[in-house]
Amino acid sequence: MSKPSLPQGTRDFGPEVVRKRQYIFNTIRTVFELYGFQPLETPAMENLETLMGKYGEEGDKLIFRILNNGLDNPDKQQQARADFEKVLEGKNVKGITERALKYDLTIPFARYVAMNHGQLTFPFKRYQIQPVWRADRPQRGRYREFYQCDADMVGSNSLLNEVELANIYNDVFTQLGIDQYELRINSRKILAALAELCGGADKMIDITIAIDKLDKIGLDKVKAELEQRGLNEEQISTIEKYLNITGNNREKLQQITALIGHLETGKKGIEELEYLDNNSQIDNRHSPLVLDFTLARGLNYYTGIIFEAKAPATVKIGSIGGGGRYNDLTGLFGVPNIPGVGISFGVDRIYDVMEELQLFPENVAIGTQVLFFNLGADESTMAFSHMQSLRKQGVRCELFHEPTKMDKQFKYAEKKNIGFVIIIGSQELQNGTCVVKNLKTGIQETIPVANLTSKLFI
Amino acid sequence: MSKPSLPQGTRDFGPEVVRKRQYIFNTIRTVFELYGFQPLETPAMENLETLMGKYGEEGDKLIFRILNNGLDNPDKQQQARADFEKVLEGKNVKGITERALKYDLTIPFARYVAMNHGQLTFPFKRYQIQPVWRADRPQRGRYREFYQCDADMVGSNSLLNEVELANIYNDVFTQLGIDQYELRINSRKILAALAELCGGADKMIDITIAIDKLDKIGLDKVKAELEQRGLNEEQISTIEKYLNITGNNREKLQQITALIGHLETGKKGIEELEYLDNNSQIDNRHSPLVLDFTLARGLNYYTGIIFEAKAPATVKIGSIGGGGRYNDLTGLFGVPNIPGVGISFGVDRIYDVMEELQLFPENVAIGTQVLFFNLGADESTMAFSHMQSLRKQGVRCELFHEPTKMDKQFKYAEKKNIGFVIIIGSQELQNGTCVVKNLKTGIQETIPVANLTSKLFI
Repeated sequence: MSKPSLPQGTRDFGPEVVRKRQYIFNTIRTVFELYGFQPLETPAMENLETLMGKYGEEGDKLIFRILNNGLDNPDKQQQARADFEKVLEGKNVKGITERALKYDLTIPFARYVAMNHGQLTFPFKRYQIQPVWRADRPQRGRYREFYQCDADMVGSNSLLNEVELANIYNDVFTQLGIDQYELRINSRKILAALAELCGGADKMIDITIAIDKLDKIGLDKVKAELEQRGLNEEQISTIEKYLNITGNNREKLQQITALIGHLETGKKGIEELEYLDNNSQIDNRHSPLVLDFTLARGLNYYTGIIFEAKAPATVKIGSIGGGGRYNDLTGLFGVPNIPGVGISFGVDRIYDVMEELQLFPENVAIGTQVLFFNLGADESTMAFSHMQSLRKQGVRCELFHEPTKMDKQFKYAEKKNIGFVIIIGSQELQNGTCVVKNLKTGIQETIPVANLTSKLFI
Repeated sequence: MSKPSLPQGTRDFGPEVVRKRQYIFNTIRTVFELYGFQPLETPAMENLETLMGKYGEEGDKLIFRILNNGLDNPDKQQQARADFEKVLEGKNVKGITERALKYDLTIPFARYVAMNHGQLTFPFKRYQIQPVWRADRPQRGRYREFYQCDADMVGSNSLLNEVELANIYNDVFTQLGIDQYELRINSRKILAALAELCGGADKMIDITIAIDKLDKIGLDKVKAELEQRGLNEEQISTIEKYLNITGNNREKLQQITALIGHLETGKKGIEELEYLDNNSQIDNRHSPLVLDFTLARGLNYYTGIIFEAKAPATVKIGSIGGGGRYNDLTGLFGVPNIPGVGISFGVDRIYDVMEELQLFPENVAIGTQVLFFNLGADESTMAFSHMQSLRKQGVRCELFHEPTKMDKQFKYAEKKNIGFVIIIGSQELQNGTCVVKNLKTGIQETIPVANLTSKLFI
């Protein structure tokens, strides 16, 4: 038997990491629920046809397909061979593979809404925290199995939803202690107006693709790409003016109004951004909301406000969340006219930010709080009964599994990072006492067992 | 586009069901942690070779394999065709399928322990709550994707662990309100002694298989099967005597001692059961612990105590949990001599029991607690600010997404089962008041907005 191993790009999460991740998930979940979002869980597997064609050609190739069972049935082999030939041509054939692992949470959500729209109450607000799978080449920070954390509100065009989502980002990051984050916002309508200004909506995709690379390649290369994509000098100069807008939010709004405020779409986009900037109640401190006209959010289906949450500049991690408004969630599944807006949290990166800035509360990593020593049959029977009553008070306890040298039991507590040990030996048994030792401070005291309460271990 | 659908045997879980399931998971998780068990999460995918050959021939056929990506690469097609021929013969070939979905939580746990045993502190106590996948024929109560909920303690032979696990069952079921459950216990050593009594250990598998069917087929058919499996009249009469043991635990122990107490293995098995019966501190009420010598737990790897938790007899649901002691968790992965004992909760069935007996607390199903009406721009700005302060106090609130007729907003609250609405109209805005209406009782009152606190909505 060869040494066991994990598939590339997947991870085991041991106790401490699970606890820290749960801390992030629980914080996000609680905030989602405070804002009236409802939990949804969809299966890991979807029918292949539900997923195919939704993520572009490159995306389709990264979908993990599941091999049908029963291919060794002799009656079906002829057909299976013929079907497999089609798989070799890059096609998907039900006879070989009917199902696949979900690639994101949005398409399964759309599929759910399309299947259940008659029963759902709109606007429908759902959140979903589940793993997804992508056959990407694994690299630092990129996994083949990872969690997504989405909240979407569908069936409403109200900008109030965008305000709520901005507040959700703020509540979550503030609660996690990531208070130096930035929430960058823009509107697709602003980008559309820029395209119009440059001579027509047909340029919007070219402009968006190029602008989206600004962070990575810099202004000069963006200009070169725009030229390559057929934009002329005058158009490129307009875009440069656009990209050079700076200042605080108010100043930026003034400059963008001067540039595209005369266009209908531009005016609408500006109004959206103003509404969001004025209404997000980001407490009374310096607002993390930053208008960023260079924000484009790739080539996706967004139509209005777009969001990108950035990690504090001191950690070089970049985006830790994003989202935006879309016109049509379920049209692909035959149910048109369901607009919506949604956001997502990047949990793996948030985890890295919190590790780097040491933001996890100390007690998050603690498993067992108290170890009762096992010093013989009668002693451990007494220990056992006290352990059970501490558990009833919510204290996480263990009794060492066998009577053995104290030394060994101390070592077990230390290795497991258990904060307290309780020792009941023959003398303590006689006196009705126990020794409580704090392993961090080294301080130990003998107390009547009647005084053992959860308060000692907080 | 055809109507979207779900793969057979899989389920979407909507808001209310997710909440109820979370209630069960959280109860189990909290108890596991009180007993010192640590969380582990392993990936959905394992290398195929990790899983194959671990579940018997039938089990192997039910594993969902994942098709490798990139099979449409022209350079590899010749090889792919040859590999596929082997798949048609029922073999597994890395070129076609390297990975598979996990089939249970035990083998991934064993793989984890084998990979990390140098770093782990033994005894190692882990719990794991994750979905698994089986290509079983779907039927009522049997799904292709379902959660398992396991706790195992490895690296210790102490019976104290069995006592702890029995107590875990009791704490969980009592907290969930399923207090009429039964925890049936037996020892594989008792079954081994019975085989010895019948003329040799080689009969143990035959006897176990037949006895395991007693519940389903009755004594006569079990006897017929034993005969068919080559046991003679005298042996069958011994087994019948064994199966007919009745009474309370004390009486059963007397009878089993008379039957097999003279055999070494039998004596050991009896001691195990006595220890467990005497030491499980199932409070001071009628004990759910029932010695059941007919319990066999199939053809698995158990070697000592075996458990089966049964739903209350009033609901016809049967087993809601099970487990037992094994000699060797990781031998299959090249790390011998790690004994352990574990239990599992059947969450889908526990859910059904709780629904049937109406055991879910009423508040578990409640999402949003308070809906603020939206009655115009100024009114909703005021509502928004009060909503934010209620959220800070932990109240789950929404503001209706757009100003519209009260009627429509009431309907939304009703459909979403929201308990309270808060109305701030132009008059209330002037007076600094709001109307709080309890939708269950129909009672409404006008109060100063300053009096809005979370206490109103408990």
